[in-house]
Amino acid sequence: MRKPVDIPALAASLKAGERRALARAITLVESGRADHRADALALLDALGNDRQALRIGLSGTPGVGKSTFIEAFGLFLVEKGLKVAVLAVDPSSARSGGSILGDKTRMEHLSRHPQAFIRPSPSQAQMGGVARRTREAIALCEAAGYDVVLIETVGVGQSETMVAEMCDLFTLLLAPAGGDELQGVKRGIMEIADIILVNKADGDLKSQATRTCADYAGALRLLRKRPQDPESFPKAMTVSAYEGRGLPEAWDEMTALADWRKDHGHFAGRRAEQARYWFHEEVRLQLLERLQRDPVLAATLEAEETKLINGESTPTVAAANVLASFAGGTR
Amino acid sequence: MRKPVDIPALAASLKAGERRALARAITLVESGRADHRADALALLDALGNDRQALRIGLSGTPGVGKSTFIEAFGLFLVEKGLKVAVLAVDPSSARSGGSILGDKTRMEHLSRHPQAFIRPSPSQAQMGGVARRTREAIALCEAAGYDVVLIETVGVGQSETMVAEMCDLFTLLLAPAGGDELQGVKRGIMEIADIILVNKADGDLKSQATRTCADYAGALRLLRKRPQDPESFPKAMTVSAYEGRGLPEAWDEMTALADWRKDHGHFAGRRAEQARYWFHEEVRLQLLERLQRDPVLAATLEAEETKLINGESTPTVAAANVLASFAGGTR
Ligand SMILES: Nc1nc2c(ncn2[C@@H]2O[C@H](COP(=O)(O)OP(=O)(O)OP(=O)(O)O)[C@@H](O)[C@H]2O)c(=O)[nH]1
Ligand SMILES: Nc1nc2c(ncn2[C@@H]2O[C@H](COP(=O)(O)OP(=O)(O)OP(=O)(O)O)[C@@H](O)[C@H]2O)c(=O)[nH]1
Ligand SMILES: [Mg+2]
Ligand SMILES: [Mg+2]
Repeated sequence: MRKPVDIPALAASLKAGERRALARAITLVESGRADHRADALALLDALGNDRQALRIGLSGTPGVGKSTFIEAFGLFLVEKGLKVAVLAVDPSSARSGGSILGDKTRMEHLSRHPQAFIRPSPSQAQMGGVARRTREAIALCEAAGYDVVLIETVGVGQSETMVAEMCDLFTLLLAPAGGDELQGVKRGIMEIADIILVNKADGDLKSQATRTCADYAGALRLLRKRPQDPESFPKAMTVSAYEGRGLPEAWDEMTALADWRKDHGHFAGRRAEQARYWFHEEVRLQLLERLQRDPVLAATLEAEETKLINGESTPTVAAANVLASFAGGTR
Repeated sequence: MRKPVDIPALAASLKAGERRALARAITLVESGRADHRADALALLDALGNDRQALRIGLSGTPGVGKSTFIEAFGLFLVEKGLKVAVLAVDPSSARSGGSILGDKTRMEHLSRHPQAFIRPSPSQAQMGGVARRTREAIALCEAAGYDVVLIETVGVGQSETMVAEMCDLFTLLLAPAGGDELQGVKRGIMEIADIILVNKADGDLKSQATRTCADYAGALRLLRKRPQDPESFPKAMTVSAYEGRGLPEAWDEMTALADWRKDHGHFAGRRAEQARYWFHEEVRLQLLERLQRDPVLAATLEAEETKLINGESTPTVAAANVLASFAGGTR
């Protein structure tokens, strides 16, 4: 027998800012079990949607300094009196073993700070599930009173686009690099980044970081201006997570951009667009889940899948046959 | 009134290898119109699934030399007597204006060769649609008698993972780079690449290309061996699309890898896995399409979307409400 979850009580504790309630709620939305899903849905419904945090996406290749930056930047924010939540998205963690241990040591002070909440990426994670989990975890952090939600991703496969679809601002962390470095950054990422931070601008790497930053600033100027940006955005800056250099400036730019977008209707507009996008994804996902729960449809699904795997059908045709067997149920 | 498509005649012309029939069929699968979709489904069903081409994915950042490489490599293959189809996947082409004009001039000889067929990326493209279109276009090229299907992508967002899910082999094209170049390649891409080709190994860039290739070869050795790979794969090689250097060697490695996988059951196994994956994607997509065609459900969908956009709901809750109104139709 399942242990029933007292949803109103959990919602109340979460709204009161209890970290354990938040952690438990995130565990609930991460679960694939049908009864947990029902509880998660009830919880989200109970919490409503009336508090907003600033959602900041942070992406960068392994080793660029994401964890170190978040430790420094997060501490800077909590010292300003803000409550900071950190969520990690790493679809590859199942494969590579993850870097959670490394993160625990690199975010040592932030993880112990009472105004901060850090949640690593769950281990077994499919893309559809990761997106849902992250989106719902953001909503939970907002309801729990966090002011800033940082969503970190290593940017494997489609994870950057996914995170960008959930954030108000998207930040790309880069390392100082040689002459050819512009090649290494994908065109699509330059297009979704609002602020590029060239990290490790310290010691021997300082002048190289400055040059790299200038190169990116030049490249950004070549991109067409987007309607949701004021003049001078997207922009590139140098920071040093080690020395804490550039963190106040980065925060100033982030808030300036968010304020401009709020004043010009782009902030709410972007959230509405994102909500619509995820709504359609959710409809798809929930339809598929229901299909898999119906024994008759699940059997058809399996039969078509077998034909397909034996090379006797194609995905489009097999799917159409499943849908045809679904036809009795709708107009 | 719509002009009816004579499906059996189109299928016969396509199987006879008529390029115009293939072009027309691809236009059909690219269309979003419901009647075109029905025709596309009938065509795919009529064509069956009994011919296989070698499907090779080719990815690389802008400017790395994909178009130049495909021109040279494609000509090398047609001169061996093979029929070569080239499909392009560029989800960003709508935004950036595309590089189709550039490609026409860079694939000048290949595009005029009777054994070759080149199809640029359609302009207005959403990710779900791009995947379906590309997958179905591959099936059409196979039915039309092509021996090799090259699927090119610039690798924006999730397009590389998507293309890798449709290919027998995945090739990553890189340019010679400075000391920090390994940073630039995303971990996820190293993991899906079967063969890395360092292009531009000519003139002044030759020694740099050799060094870059050695760096990647070293990095690849650090990755865990995958069950679907023989010893020494994934591997890195240098090529020059300009001088045609390394193309026969690259082809030898590709066929060696494909043959090994065929002998060890991994070729068919991978295709079966991919078919299952796309089958599930198609079921989702077709369910959503049906939902949007049903007037009652479409109205609920719209009402929930409006609430959502006004910030009165969340995607998970709104989707659950749509699904609840769908409940009468199924068990
Ligand atoms: N010089 C210098 N080194 C830094 C800085 N920030 C991080 N590093 C170093 O860069 C390396 C990687 O830092 P991490 O914070 O673990 O990088 P990451 O992006 O989180 O890496 P993954 O978790 O593997 O994706 C470590 O050795 C850090 O000490 C910085 O500001 N300056
Ligand atoms: N030296 C040298 N230059 C090359 C080679 N192949 C391509 N190039 C040059 O690199 C530049 C880019 O080549 P493209 O073939 O257009 O590159 P692409 O990857 O198709 O670029 P996009 O279509 O923009 O994504 C051109 O100036 C080519 O002439 C090569 O083998 N050697
Ligand atoms: Mg880290
Ligand atoms: Mg090109």
